[in-house]
Amino acid sequence: MLSTTLEPERQATTNAMTRLEAAFTDDMAKVNDLIIERMQSPVGMIPDLAAHLVRAGGKRLRPLITLASADLAGYTGDAHYKLAATVEFIHSATLLHDDIVDGSPMRRGKPAANTVWGNAASVLVGDFLFARAFSLMVETGRLRVLDILAGASSIIAEGEVRQLAAIANLDMSELEYMQIIEAKTAELFASAARVSAVIADLPEEQELALDRYGRELGLAFQLVDDALDYAGSAKKLGKAVGDDFREGKVTMPVAKAIQLASKDEQSFWTEAFSKPERNDHDLQHAMALITKHDAVQTTLDQARTHVRNAKSALQIFAPERTRTLLSDVCDFVIDRSF
Amino acid sequence: MLSTTLEPERQATTNAMTRLEAAFTDDMAKVNDLIIERMQSPVGMIPDLAAHLVRAGGKRLRPLITLASADLAGYTGDAHYKLAATVEFIHSATLLHDDIVDGSPMRRGKPAANTVWGNAASVLVGDFLFARAFSLMVETGRLRVLDILAGASSIIAEGEVRQLAAIANLDMSELEYMQIIEAKTAELFASAARVSAVIADLPEEQELALDRYGRELGLAFQLVDDALDYAGSAKKLGKAVGDDFREGKVTMPVAKAIQLASKDEQSFWTEAFSKPERNDHDLQHAMALITKHDAVQTTLDQARTHVRNAKSALQIFAPERTRTLLSDVCDFVIDRSF
Repeated sequence: MLSTTLEPERQATTNAMTRLEAAFTDDMAKVNDLIIERMQSPVGMIPDLAAHLVRAGGKRLRPLITLASADLAGYTGDAHYKLAATVEFIHSATLLHDDIVDGSPMRRGKPAANTVWGNAASVLVGDFLFARAFSLMVETGRLRVLDILAGASSIIAEGEVRQLAAIANLDMSELEYMQIIEAKTAELFASAARVSAVIADLPEEQELALDRYGRELGLAFQLVDDALDYAGSAKKLGKAVGDDFREGKVTMPVAKAIQLASKDEQSFWTEAFSKPERNDHDLQHAMALITKHDAVQTTLDQARTHVRNAKSALQIFAPERTRTLLSDVCDFVIDRSF
Repeated sequence: MLSTTLEPERQATTNAMTRLEAAFTDDMAKVNDLIIERMQSPVGMIPDLAAHLVRAGGKRLRPLITLASADLAGYTGDAHYKLAATVEFIHSATLLHDDIVDGSPMRRGKPAANTVWGNAASVLVGDFLFARAFSLMVETGRLRVLDILAGASSIIAEGEVRQLAAIANLDMSELEYMQIIEAKTAELFASAARVSAVIADLPEEQELALDRYGRELGLAFQLVDDALDYAGSAKKLGKAVGDDFREGKVTMPVAKAIQLASKDEQSFWTEAFSKPERNDHDLQHAMALITKHDAVQTTLDQARTHVRNAKSALQIFAPERTRTLLSDVCDFVIDRSF
């Protein structure tokens, strides 16, 4: 569904991600080296499990944002490599812990680490990566960076707990939902961009503009993620379609479909989310209602609004190449189907 | 068994803990206020779960060590309150995550948090406390403190993973075992004492002496913990006797009994630890063999050696009241039966 709608712009925006990656290939290679180096441990299970996760890869969008923001900020030192690795470590730690929380068997098309090594190892290796992230930050010698990323880490945990407490809560408002995803997803994007402004000693206005850029991009990113869970292809997602629904997570497409639901439809949603498990038949019906109320499209429209906000936050910076790259990659976030 | 052996010195050493607590009652009240304040969150499940853990209490030995070490170091500021709270937060986060790793139903005589709130909440609230610990440290403005405690946190995680990988490994040497408990337990005791030397700007020799004091005390603490698992009373332990055995953990009393085992006894240990579960009958036999080879007593003897090392590390400091308190509390660690 999504791919049909977005096909016309696909080529251009895929290239936006490729262009960003290409512009920072050398920097990203240094970050990757640092990631490999700092996940080492004499305790073999740690690098094995960390490598499984880190190699599975994903787009490394967060560390790329840190690198590009540092460039935009005119930073000339080398602390940004450590910060980009830090951001990826914090992200990886939260992924390991999320897989336990969600009980997801798959992550990025591979068995989730907890499926292979068990919950215990996933908890502990997540803790290890989180601790190593802090050690990396300490090396930058910048207390404000530590303050921002320690604060972000507790906000992320709060967002995750709030989402956990909201399982099967059909009364959740869109505002509450946006607060949850701002905490669990957008806060790290915001910090990934902001810390580069800090090490470059930018004035506060520009630091906050980079925070805003990352935050709006993160909101868009999560909304698209939520839409893809009902509209993507399992192959491209690297996990099953409808996982959020099966886990009882009320995400934006469901919240929107519920707002527009008839009485019968309301009953379906109430019944479906009050059951301990939802089957394929339930999912098919849920997807039919989401389609009927155009809830994937309206979720994507909302993501596009946040992309516009992200781009507009960049206007404070001179219209040079890196600003264009950061601006263009926002469209990729809307258009990605993996 | 333990209580009979140790009864004569019980009264005196219980008083050593009481004396340490009494000497720092006012300081500890400030630390407790800080702990309550910083575990707050608009997300209700977080303070609820954190309060369950923090109220369950334990002795607060680690933050007391930080406070007393700061006093011993002649520190006159107020960063030590934040560091004591930090140390307790890191300890609490590891407890929450350990309960998931161990699958323990009980902790300090109450249902473990994961039994009440589930694994997901325990993972996330542990992450929250860990992040808040780092925010507290940042407020002290001392990068070396952050470096020490971030480093300690990754070493703790490594120790836990190593213990996980060593489940049912009957070939584990005493040296390997000591390395595991130095990482998972003693490192935090060492850091709890050391960071006070850092904020007091003590010379390196005294900083390392406090590290050594905490490290040796931590080793003794864990060895006694391991002994109590086979020799304590369930009521005083606040958890079942023999939990380590049931979980397949090879701890020091077992390692020592295995070293002295006859061929038949070897077969028992091999069989017992190769089974997915060990029953009460297995535990009774294990305890009989541990008694036969005096393995609880030799484990406690080893703990006493580390207590002597801890006391001796303090000799570099003037023989004033706080040094005596820190020295005397080592005996409490040997003698505690809860």
